[in-house]
Amino acid sequence: MSGRKEKPVRVAVDAMGGDYAPFEIVKGAVQAAGEDGVEIILVGIEDVVRKELARYDAANLPLRVVNASEVIGYDESPVAALRQKPDASLVVALQLVKTGEADAMVSMGSTGAIMAGAKWILGTLRGIKRPVMGGTFLRLAPNTVVFDMGANVDCKPSLLLNFAVMGCVVARKTLNITNPTVAILSNGAEEGKGNRLVKETYQLFKNSDMNFIGSVEGHDIPLGKANVIVCDGFTGNVLLKFSEGLGQAIIGRLKATLKERLSEDEIEVIGSDLLALISAADVEGGGMLYGVDGVVIIGHGRAQSPQLASAVRHARLMVETDVIGALRLELAKL
Amino acid sequence: MSGRKEKPVRVAVDAMGGDYAPFEIVKGAVQAAGEDGVEIILVGIEDVVRKELARYDAANLPLRVVNASEVIGYDESPVAALRQKPDASLVVALQLVKTGEADAMVSMGSTGAIMAGAKWILGTLRGIKRPVMGGTFLRLAPNTVVFDMGANVDCKPSLLLNFAVMGCVVARKTLNITNPTVAILSNGAEEGKGNRLVKETYQLFKNSDMNFIGSVEGHDIPLGKANVIVCDGFTGNVLLKFSEGLGQAIIGRLKATLKERLSEDEIEVIGSDLLALISAADVEGGGMLYGVDGVVIIGHGRAQSPQLASAVRHARLMVETDVIGALRLELAKL
Repeated sequence: MSGRKEKPVRVAVDAMGGDYAPFEIVKGAVQAAGEDGVEIILVGIEDVVRKELARYDAANLPLRVVNASEVIGYDESPVAALRQKPDASLVVALQLVKTGEADAMVSMGSTGAIMAGAKWILGTLRGIKRPVMGGTFLRLAPNTVVFDMGANVDCKPSLLLNFAVMGCVVARKTLNITNPTVAILSNGAEEGKGNRLVKETYQLFKNSDMNFIGSVEGHDIPLGKANVIVCDGFTGNVLLKFSEGLGQAIIGRLKATLKERLSEDEIEVIGSDLLALISAADVEGGGMLYGVDGVVIIGHGRAQSPQLASAVRHARLMVETDVIGALRLELAKL
Repeated sequence: MSGRKEKPVRVAVDAMGGDYAPFEIVKGAVQAAGEDGVEIILVGIEDVVRKELARYDAANLPLRVVNASEVIGYDESPVAALRQKPDASLVVALQLVKTGEADAMVSMGSTGAIMAGAKWILGTLRGIKRPVMGGTFLRLAPNTVVFDMGANVDCKPSLLLNFAVMGCVVARKTLNITNPTVAILSNGAEEGKGNRLVKETYQLFKNSDMNFIGSVEGHDIPLGKANVIVCDGFTGNVLLKFSEGLGQAIIGRLKATLKERLSEDEIEVIGSDLLALISAADVEGGGMLYGVDGVVIIGHGRAQSPQLASAVRHARLMVETDVIGALRLELAKL
């Protein structure tokens, strides 16, 4: 696609969201604006953002600032904060997507507030009740997406079917897998295994026209045993965080072990390579919020400039492959 | 305890259970019988077991054979198999515990059949409805036990309270922690976070006299943020298997990376050290089945002789510290 002359993808970046905002966000936005095919709209308290921007030679970059006078913090109740702060940066960024001034929105701010805001401002796609977080879970298993990773903690089988449909679209559109295999995460591979939700979902999936291959177990995720692995958001979230924590702990121990044998530089490279394999979210810079009517990327609060730039790239891919349009089509078939 | 002259702990070992049975099981039993303070009762098809035993110089070891003419396989339905094979090795081994001829039972056979058999033959402790698998989850976090790891997939808050009580006894008795901290595994640390089960359990724990510290997240497990972490057995089982799979995948990649830099022997040592940190079950040789009226250790199907010997050691510790007696006392208080 990069060969053709495309219209640039306009990405609204929440300049105030994230542990290292605005410094790292603005820095990452400048970096992203220097890449092909994107235009950046930095949304935040204008004075603050411009002061940050002044650090860089950004005058000729496709980058502009839109003022938003308020900021929603991590410790605020999402719904109350949205009500009390109509001019918050993440709200304004979402509105730019709604009005068509931006093609996508990226924020490293409060996940709860972004989700609630996206649902409220952009609305959900027809057939979807609640937004879903999902995507590739581990770079170790690059052809496997996991849905849901934390947005929906109490699920019914019909919701897991939604996750599977979204997962299939994502696998087709972003991983180029024609007929993705679908599995349910369970405590055993046999049909009779699982908790109540898994057992009921199993029957629903069996009777669908998806390429359903049954249940997979925890150890099958790193092996990439299915292209789309579906679980409730509680399990997905616990797994995602456990994976990150375990990876960091292992790498910490490994570094200590290697200290006497290899140079500091070598150890650093080995450590970050392994870490990258474990955390897809860090690689992509953020996960897409699926099910809302627009491209919304939510990143880690601890994201720094490379992750922000990576999230913008991810947003661009989602816009260019028209994931939302494909989702809309698939959902209409249900 | 090893300084005093104690009565040896008599451990019934299911010689026929496990992927490498009877060869590795008998080999491990011979090894275990050579250690202080245990007596081994090998239970299985006598001819087969004696033929295996003939490989070793075991005549003077505290080890005897008890015949059991049948074997329950992994692919059999536990309940049906127990009914159809009353002389199965795991059944006979459990009966030795029931009649007091053995102090503990160790098997690497079908988890489902051992659980169902233990419940049926030994019965559950007063106040316990179903057996529970639990224990240290990661050697990385040696002072943290996780309950349940897979026995109970659909749970109510009262069951999670059972898990917590058992976890506290185990932490006190086997980890020597006087006042263990207790937490619920959740998708967020705040009180309002969690699925329905977590939210209800939170209130129940808050009103208990346990040392409850609230909810912990996935990344808190490797950090050992609480001594006792409670979750439903579905989540626990998925996590346990994910942890093993992820660990093996990381170590596989690491070995490939280190190949050009270190010797094969060095890589092997680093790899197994890291693997040991991840998988407590492999280190201990097996997990205790809690809640039944007797010491029952269930190991990995793929266990080999060192894991069998380690499981016997674990069984001895459980008998010598009288974990069952302590559990009985604690449960009576509820």
